[in-house]
Amino acid sequence: MSDTVKYLLDEKDIPTHWYNIMADLPEPLAPPLHPGTGQPIGPEDLAPLFPMELIKQEVSAEREIVIPDEVRDIYKQWRPTPMFRARRLERALDTPAKIYYKYEGVSPAGSHKPNTAIAQAYYNKAEGITKLSTETGAGQWGSSLAFAGALFGLEVDVYMVKVSFQQKPYRKALMESYGARCVASPSDETEAGRAILQDSPNSAGSLGIAISEAVEIAATRDDTKYSLGSVLNHVLMHQTVVGQEAVKQLEMAGDYPDVVVGCTGGGSNFAGITFPFLGEKLRGGKDVKVIAVEPAACPTLTRGKYAYDFGDTGHLTPLVKMHTLGSTFIPPGFHAGGLRYHGMAPLVSHVQELDLISSRAYHQTECFAAGIQFAHEEGILPAPEANHAVKGAIDEALRCKEEGKSETILFNLCGHGHFDMQAYMDYFAGNLEDRNYDEGELAMALAGLPSVAAE
Amino acid sequence: MSDTVKYLLDEKDIPTHWYNIMADLPEPLAPPLHPGTGQPIGPEDLAPLFPMELIKQEVSAEREIVIPDEVRDIYKQWRPTPMFRARRLERALDTPAKIYYKYEGVSPAGSHKPNTAIAQAYYNKAEGITKLSTETGAGQWGSSLAFAGALFGLEVDVYMVKVSFQQKPYRKALMESYGARCVASPSDETEAGRAILQDSPNSAGSLGIAISEAVEIAATRDDTKYSLGSVLNHVLMHQTVVGQEAVKQLEMAGDYPDVVVGCTGGGSNFAGITFPFLGEKLRGGKDVKVIAVEPAACPTLTRGKYAYDFGDTGHLTPLVKMHTLGSTFIPPGFHAGGLRYHGMAPLVSHVQELDLISSRAYHQTECFAAGIQFAHEEGILPAPEANHAVKGAIDEALRCKEEGKSETILFNLCGHGHFDMQAYMDYFAGNLEDRNYDEGELAMALAGLPSVAAE
Repeated sequence: MSDTVKYLLDEKDIPTHWYNIMADLPEPLAPPLHPGTGQPIGPEDLAPLFPMELIKQEVSAEREIVIPDEVRDIYKQWRPTPMFRARRLERALDTPAKIYYKYEGVSPAGSHKPNTAIAQAYYNKAEGITKLSTETGAGQWGSSLAFAGALFGLEVDVYMVKVSFQQKPYRKALMESYGARCVASPSDETEAGRAILQDSPNSAGSLGIAISEAVEIAATRDDTKYSLGSVLNHVLMHQTVVGQEAVKQLEMAGDYPDVVVGCTGGGSNFAGITFPFLGEKLRGGKDVKVIAVEPAACPTLTRGKYAYDFGDTGHLTPLVKMHTLGSTFIPPGFHAGGLRYHGMAPLVSHVQELDLISSRAYHQTECFAAGIQFAHEEGILPAPEANHAVKGAIDEALRCKEEGKSETILFNLCGHGHFDMQAYMDYFAGNLEDRNYDEGELAMALAGLPSVAAE
Repeated sequence: MSDTVKYLLDEKDIPTHWYNIMADLPEPLAPPLHPGTGQPIGPEDLAPLFPMELIKQEVSAEREIVIPDEVRDIYKQWRPTPMFRARRLERALDTPAKIYYKYEGVSPAGSHKPNTAIAQAYYNKAEGITKLSTETGAGQWGSSLAFAGALFGLEVDVYMVKVSFQQKPYRKALMESYGARCVASPSDETEAGRAILQDSPNSAGSLGIAISEAVEIAATRDDTKYSLGSVLNHVLMHQTVVGQEAVKQLEMAGDYPDVVVGCTGGGSNFAGITFPFLGEKLRGGKDVKVIAVEPAACPTLTRGKYAYDFGDTGHLTPLVKMHTLGSTFIPPGFHAGGLRYHGMAPLVSHVQELDLISSRAYHQTECFAAGIQFAHEEGILPAPEANHAVKGAIDEALRCKEEGKSETILFNLCGHGHFDMQAYMDYFAGNLEDRNYDEGELAMALAGLPSVAAE
């Protein structure tokens, strides 16, 4: 039997619609609130930040949103992405389980992020915007929006968390290759950044701070809008092309997953691979066990509180109901910078509250070990973020071995590790620590959650 | 009209045979000679270094060599690779020419090199070998053989040119992720390495030195064979899957190239994309202009002498007839480490002597500028080696513009630049110099060419 089993779709199989799970959920999502009034916000509150089409998508209850031809056209460069059966990994684990993985690292920016970057750049361009501001942690999102900006002729300013900016100069160079500008955050370009620098001149930055800076720039300039790489409903929805393709590819394989695993930072990768399967279940289809895997050092879903909170440190965003560690929580350093966010997408939080998914947390060294094993068997070196999903899938496969069950496991390998080799070097050198967050700091951050009228 | 035009083949279109251009050439290749006797060598002379199947391929006159099922099975992971029409680049250049590019960066190791690495690992494994030794410059080849070794369960020792070893620690980390061992060359592990270190303790290494080390290890150990990433006939032949697929993809496009461009270091990428087209021409098909692009700092085809020379610095290899700058020639530093070899594949040299191809040399900064323009329009950041081909294709497209001709141009984008970001950073910072080789040193290296009886 062949060792390499790849499921490839035709170009015509690129989804024609994004899937909106809101249409199928038994309970609606809690509305975002205005931090001043505590009242639900309207489209006009978001208009300074986002183009109207994306605001409409953010609150849409339609099950399907048509993907514009121009966006599908660019998707064609790397979509449909391949799905593989990990036969060599199965053999190495000696498991009766079948492991499939969808691979999003084939995009030019190397991850799933361009699925929404292209869409966001398209809608902004269509509404006459000439410049986008955004934040980035590890740089996957920043380089994806830079890529999208280059194709649509938009200027892109990226506020990159300072510690990543210093650790990952090559991500910055990639953004610059696409013509974007990349600035270490906190910067002196914004009120939000200057306020942080005044208090803590040596601040290493955080995603929450970088979001404040990017939001401020967009809010104060007419030609500029803000672009977010995760968390928001429309961003998660754009990623559902991943799961929709996987549904078709598993059909080709004559299979259906018992377990779907995704890693979670802000939630967009997780939603992308899992929501189309959850949707089938919600509409009366087959049951599926859905597992969110997060870093133990930033355990939003497993240790956060489900409450209204700000999306950023500077408190410029609306309040959204989500699993949060508190907007002042700064997780200890670990190498999956894309997973270092204090909150979780409201939609992902909501489906956990509805018991549609479960979550678990892993430390980074066990995830790197899983990633190395995967690379050795399957040939692709995953990003540190993706290693969390690999570890989750391997553990499920080992459970199947113990239980003697031949279950079908699917996970999304959301990006390659080519820009994360320092992390692998640190791992090989034994220099990676599994740091825990400080319980006292978490308690303090949670105690500082805003109290809002609507709760 | 769509901006993204991708030509995708089915898995069944992965070539079933490698194409051997020797069957179609009007004159045979000059034989490799034993350096001691000056007489043509036989299979037994190569047996300490290579498995017998590869030796047979090296001297075969058959037009087609069957690709073993096990090799095609692994090819499936990333093959057939996509071919794109570079429509946005065409528009940016305002050229009437059509530009197509084949993209080999989708392989797990990020370049065309696994096409031969997998084949070589397979034949060695089949003949009971447990370990491979090899050299690498920029690291594309070393990581490809490491990848192949992981899949076939072979140990892999890579001697990496010291200056690259120091500049590109991430390539080493990638090799280690696949379980290979990577050593800076010259090393103290071999006679050849120790001899160099005694003379020049601070030697930065060269491909010629690293080859000597890897060859010595293989020659002195029964369980170990040597693996070369370019230059040899069988290596070039394994790369013809690239050009064969491109022939089919251009058929899909209803087109045929007027011009095919490839960058040349040892010659395998160039042969891979161009030989199948040259073969069609040699068998009475359409004429095609074939252009080899090389670095001005190491201009083997444009300035080298066509003569018998050693493949390595330590003079452990047979003598082969090729365009050479002399085995003692050390090119000045530039960032396309994969193109820093003193010689050229005998087959590529031969087709140039037969006037089937022409060659040109570019400096590195103009190649980086071309690569940045390509990334901005097409979204993929090329490896510095591949930038030479990009520059060649752009210049041909601009010639077409000047001449008002709508020619069809094809080039191979042989790898991505994810592991070469320092080079791009240096380019952006204005720190890249276009260094020329020293004419006196070249003259001296050429004067030192071995005199052989058979010439």
